[in-house]
Amino acid sequence: MLVEYKKIIDKELKKFSDELPSLSIYEPLKYIISNGGKRFRSSLALMAADLFSNKPYLAINEAIAIELFHNFTLIHDDIMDQAPIRRNLPAIHKKWDENIAILSGDLLHALVNQLLSKSSSQSPTLHQIFQQTAVEVCEGQSLDMEFEKLEIIAKTDYINMIQLKTAVLVACSLKMGALIGGASEKDAQLLYDFGLNLGTSFQIHDDILDVFPNEDNFGKQVGGDIIEKKKTILYIDFLTKASNEDKKLVNQIIDDKQLSREQKVSKVKEFFLKYDVLKVALDSKDEFYHKSMVSLGNLSLSENKKKVVEDFSVQLMNRKY
Amino acid sequence: MLVEYKKIIDKELKKFSDELPSLSIYEPLKYIISNGGKRFRSSLALMAADLFSNKPYLAINEAIAIELFHNFTLIHDDIMDQAPIRRNLPAIHKKWDENIAILSGDLLHALVNQLLSKSSSQSPTLHQIFQQTAVEVCEGQSLDMEFEKLEIIAKTDYINMIQLKTAVLVACSLKMGALIGGASEKDAQLLYDFGLNLGTSFQIHDDILDVFPNEDNFGKQVGGDIIEKKKTILYIDFLTKASNEDKKLVNQIIDDKQLSREQKVSKVKEFFLKYDVLKVALDSKDEFYHKSMVSLGNLSLSENKKKVVEDFSVQLMNRKY
Repeated sequence: MLVEYKKIIDKELKKFSDELPSLSIYEPLKYIISNGGKRFRSSLALMAADLFSNKPYLAINEAIAIELFHNFTLIHDDIMDQAPIRRNLPAIHKKWDENIAILSGDLLHALVNQLLSKSSSQSPTLHQIFQQTAVEVCEGQSLDMEFEKLEIIAKTDYINMIQLKTAVLVACSLKMGALIGGASEKDAQLLYDFGLNLGTSFQIHDDILDVFPNEDNFGKQVGGDIIEKKKTILYIDFLTKASNEDKKLVNQIIDDKQLSREQKVSKVKEFFLKYDVLKVALDSKDEFYHKSMVSLGNLSLSENKKKVVEDFSVQLMNRKY
Repeated sequence: MLVEYKKIIDKELKKFSDELPSLSIYEPLKYIISNGGKRFRSSLALMAADLFSNKPYLAINEAIAIELFHNFTLIHDDIMDQAPIRRNLPAIHKKWDENIAILSGDLLHALVNQLLSKSSSQSPTLHQIFQQTAVEVCEGQSLDMEFEKLEIIAKTDYINMIQLKTAVLVACSLKMGALIGGASEKDAQLLYDFGLNLGTSFQIHDDILDVFPNEDNFGKQVGGDIIEKKKTILYIDFLTKASNEDKKLVNQIIDDKQLSREQKVSKVKEFFLKYDVLKVALDSKDEFYHKSMVSLGNLSLSENKKKVVEDFSVQLMNRKY
């Protein structure tokens, strides 16, 4: 269903990119825009506007702004995480350099706001929602960076972090789209809550998939998070529950140069199973998915339209990529 | 005259800082806000509002936003320039690290927009002026970085760069303050032009002061730009006019480890005088100053008020710091 929206987004992003000045600092932006992406957040803004007005295009500027804001955060996150690859291509800080990545990210952040400043849909309410979200996304990234240095993280703190870093922008997209489509404040907030909880559930799902992939989850390498000792919901639950000895063992396994990647993942997985961390993660995932469905149910939309959103949610949570 | 406005700004910035959350990513922001600064740009926003309404405080949110935006650019510029010191204290990327500097800068940029989104003075026009300026400032920084790698830069390109990097934010402050104070579009634009040209003149003045300080310019070390081979208006004019031999000589002088700093500056200065670069710089400075005074003269303000702005301009151009 989102495929149609994605087509609109891709077309508008191309137009946006083609109209950028020829100054060289715009090159990395043309590059990242042309490198694709699921256009998930921006598609949701169009869907939300569509749900309430049958005119998805009303929210096009805000959708594009949200997509570009997401890309700005990717540019800077890749510097901070020293990630060399983004969407199967060199990250901007690798293809150019760190300074160009910092500055082109800043420029993109400014362009996002310039786009919003020119939108005929703009209002103080929309402005506030978006800027509040932008602040929260930065806070989320800061918590993510801090957590990488901590030994123990409470699950609630982890949930708070992924909500700020990821889910609020999903929720913001939906709320802005809904308001632009003419939704009541109440419905817009319900859609925000739907997005926040679905986004949270999805992020937990993503953590799980890395270690326990779907049967037909071919293509993606399993256990990337384990190898990087990434603080996923599985790993933080393990760190909370495991004996010091087992924590030490897991650390040694990951650092062991004699072991293949597959061996490491398989061994660490045994420890995860020993402490039943999968169950905790699945319970959390279900809890937030359930919450999102409650919000969806309370929306004053036709059952048909709710069904469309629910189908999309199911599809999202079963994603194989 | 700006002293009174600066007091207001300092007080409001302190309040803003005190109300920031306790999350650790806010620490660098509290640090940079408390480290002072001339509060030049923000004071101009208050002055402009004052000129047209006698109520400087009307533009307080926009003034604070502009000051904080300026500080955001300083945080990131210091990373890109690898500048260890800012306002006599360690720059954020040194006191913390580069990642914290990138992210706290991004957060500050988002907070600026959040502040604007909550301002009761907001309007699509103000929004557009500010965001257009934010884009231009990033473009200016990109040109500055590019120019450092070039051998020859045309004076007009240099002027364009300093206008984007520095003068547009000064002009934007004045225009936003004027509009908030109730100025006509024509007067607001005249004040913008005044600021753009005064800012340009001031930046050229700053280049000159580094090599040819005022008689009573004690305290600041002379020739810092020369030692860093910074592409000032003097240096680019020298590079345009000088023989290859003289260019080589100047380069050797600056790199010569046998020479003291004072010797280097004194020797390079001789070459600058040989090619009469001071005159070109002074002519440019005067040209833009004159333009700013023409815009000032055309404003529909009382002669008294114009006199106040002119006095401030004279004071600015005679600054000893």
